[in-house]
Amino acid sequence: VSAAVGLVLVGAELVEGRALDENGAWMARRITESGARVLRWAAVSDDEEAIAGAVRESAAVAPLVLVSGGLGPTDDDRTRSGLARAAGVPLVEDAAAWAWIEGVFRARGRVPKAVQRRQAQVPKGARWLANPVGTAPALEVRVGGATVLAFPGVPVELRALFEAEALPRIRALPGLVPTALRLLATAGLPETDVAERLGDLRSDPGLVVGWYPHQGEVEVSLRAHGPGCEEVAERARRVALERLGDAVLDAGPGERIEHAVVRLLRARGLRLTSAESVTGGLVARMLTAVPGASEVFPGGYVTYSNQAKVRELGVPVLLLREQGPVSEPVVRAMAEGALRRAEVDAALATTGVAGPGDLATAGAAPVPAGTAYVAVALRDRPTEALRLSLPLPRELFQRRVAVEALDRLRRAVLGEVWGR
Amino acid sequence: VSAAVGLVLVGAELVEGRALDENGAWMARRITESGARVLRWAAVSDDEEAIAGAVRESAAVAPLVLVSGGLGPTDDDRTRSGLARAAGVPLVEDAAAWAWIEGVFRARGRVPKAVQRRQAQVPKGARWLANPVGTAPALEVRVGGATVLAFPGVPVELRALFEAEALPRIRALPGLVPTALRLLATAGLPETDVAERLGDLRSDPGLVVGWYPHQGEVEVSLRAHGPGCEEVAERARRVALERLGDAVLDAGPGERIEHAVVRLLRARGLRLTSAESVTGGLVARMLTAVPGASEVFPGGYVTYSNQAKVRELGVPVLLLREQGPVSEPVVRAMAEGALRRAEVDAALATTGVAGPGDLATAGAAPVPAGTAYVAVALRDRPTEALRLSLPLPRELFQRRVAVEALDRLRRAVLGEVWGR
Repeated sequence: VSAAVGLVLVGAELVEGRALDENGAWMARRITESGARVLRWAAVSDDEEAIAGAVRESAAVAPLVLVSGGLGPTDDDRTRSGLARAAGVPLVEDAAAWAWIEGVFRARGRVPKAVQRRQAQVPKGARWLANPVGTAPALEVRVGGATVLAFPGVPVELRALFEAEALPRIRALPGLVPTALRLLATAGLPETDVAERLGDLRSDPGLVVGWYPHQGEVEVSLRAHGPGCEEVAERARRVALERLGDAVLDAGPGERIEHAVVRLLRARGLRLTSAESVTGGLVARMLTAVPGASEVFPGGYVTYSNQAKVRELGVPVLLLREQGPVSEPVVRAMAEGALRRAEVDAALATTGVAGPGDLATAGAAPVPAGTAYVAVALRDRPTEALRLSLPLPRELFQRRVAVEALDRLRRAVLGEVWGR
Repeated sequence: VSAAVGLVLVGAELVEGRALDENGAWMARRITESGARVLRWAAVSDDEEAIAGAVRESAAVAPLVLVSGGLGPTDDDRTRSGLARAAGVPLVEDAAAWAWIEGVFRARGRVPKAVQRRQAQVPKGARWLANPVGTAPALEVRVGGATVLAFPGVPVELRALFEAEALPRIRALPGLVPTALRLLATAGLPETDVAERLGDLRSDPGLVVGWYPHQGEVEVSLRAHGPGCEEVAERARRVALERLGDAVLDAGPGERIEHAVVRLLRARGLRLTSAESVTGGLVARMLTAVPGASEVFPGGYVTYSNQAKVRELGVPVLLLREQGPVSEPVVRAMAEGALRRAEVDAALATTGVAGPGDLATAGAAPVPAGTAYVAVALRDRPTEALRLSLPLPRELFQRRVAVEALDRLRRAVLGEVWGR
């Protein structure tokens, strides 16, 4: 197997299921993006023997093994002794590592505690690596024919050390095929539509095409291998852009629909408000999680009850009574009411029935759970509304409705020659 | 090692880092709660050889191995052939399994497609297990001396099959020590305080005491082993309840502060509104994610801009100008304004500076990022307000402020002989 990497993730919280392995997933993604592959993935407890065993097994099949966690100063941290056991050497204090630790503390105006001395221990013959953002040195140990790098489990430290120490070694792995990656974030197209539009790209043997649904959004990954991979990936990206059209979001790595919406509104100089019933604040929460959202989102309304819809948004009582709160006329009135009241350029609204517990809000009209309406109102434009039927568990349903509302807003703004 | 279980998680999305391993974490948690332990944890790609290798390694050290994923109908699903290879037998179609699949489809008024026939294949000599909630049979295979159970990766199917098929086998594992588990959810106490109050319980050798911080909440786990474990765990629970006092939430398994708040308000017959600046809708979103929230939460306000605070909540312009929007007088005015306007029994409010992008909302007064104020207003009671200083990344900061606001509300309501 070419360019294989092993991962050993250390932590009782992992093997007891108390935490999801975000470090492992992050490293696996970076390794895959770099053109290598994760051949072994093992999670182990903070146990010297378990760590040593997993490292040895991984080192037997992969030339590079990355270990995360277990480098803290307390007795629970066993990665140092696990590595020493895997390498068959004793653990010894390294004077230079200790001097480095003392220096880091001194620079922060502090003095290391006695327990921190443990962090200066290294398997005999191993190298310690300076940690650019923390006080725990990383380690580089030879086990059999493999290089083993151990990083602290604190995500910011792990990531910095991965980029500085692991990535150059991954790039130097024998058999690494040059790789070019293009990612596209999309919204408003079901996975099956994405598959239909891009399926034939899979016939190119030099290209790996993947699509990954995330609650109403689909991420497209285009990975080309071998000589000329940059051109192949770029050509595939252009084809995908053309076929996916305005489903493609203006989003950077790790960004989602809310980033694309905030960016678009900023570029157009537009301000948005939200009137949420079934999504219960989720749209506002998604927008305000984006740094700088305050420029485009002065605020919104969560109007769960009928009374709140009347009082805050001016939805007519008669309309609610006649149509029921989960109806197209009501969602239109919500969006238009919010637009007027907040004195902004755009408003979106949601209403629906997420589950049996919501029936109280659904009025007399029988509306099945999983039904939602979204509306988009733009200043001086006709209001658009849409019915959705999504039989999903409560939180997934709310998320899908929120994504759909934001995407309808995005498309409405994109479709208008409008704004600044 | 007593009562050891191996886990093999199958899926390219795992080893490429595109998904977090929620199935693995869920099973690991259930296994640990049952008194067994996860001795091996391997994630592998949809690759016959990799699956077979991981299963064999796990079966060599653990009497029970659980496999998830890779049982779908397409060519990408390789768990069936991986298990056959691990057991050293061919893959054969099982007529009874196919009849069962046809029956499930028939009951839904559908006919299985030709590709679904793959799901009737089993390693020769293995058993297939009916899936109570899906159309993919599970498998039970002997590999060496171990029992290997393979479940579909769809979470609802995996969980149902785990409870029906894996749990009885875990309980029958040789060396399983009887175990009693008590979990307590808490809020409003830092991890260090929890540790200080419960640390001495760790001196009991028959008791494993853990505390796990989740963004402002701390989960306490009390696990007793061996004969009399129920009494030991129950005694520890009573001690912990007494020492943690009203930090303990009225919450069932998997529940968090928002569940405790909704339950408390329902019990007291009280209605709540929210006025959110820095949390941007997160409090409303947390509450409305709880089924039945509509009974106690008619709606809330997201007032990110100064204008929205004035218009929606009636915060005096002069107060905003003189004190700045991130100030104790303003957060009080927000809570009191929301209480009046929404005509409810209780209101909470948040304001703060999550990061540099929010400086526009912070007015003239220089307030460092990571500063927040929360206020709780109860009808006919004096309003309480509190300053928080939490130098955290944006989303974590927002989450911590939301939890703090909900917990202050909870304690204020608990502290009053009030309501229905």
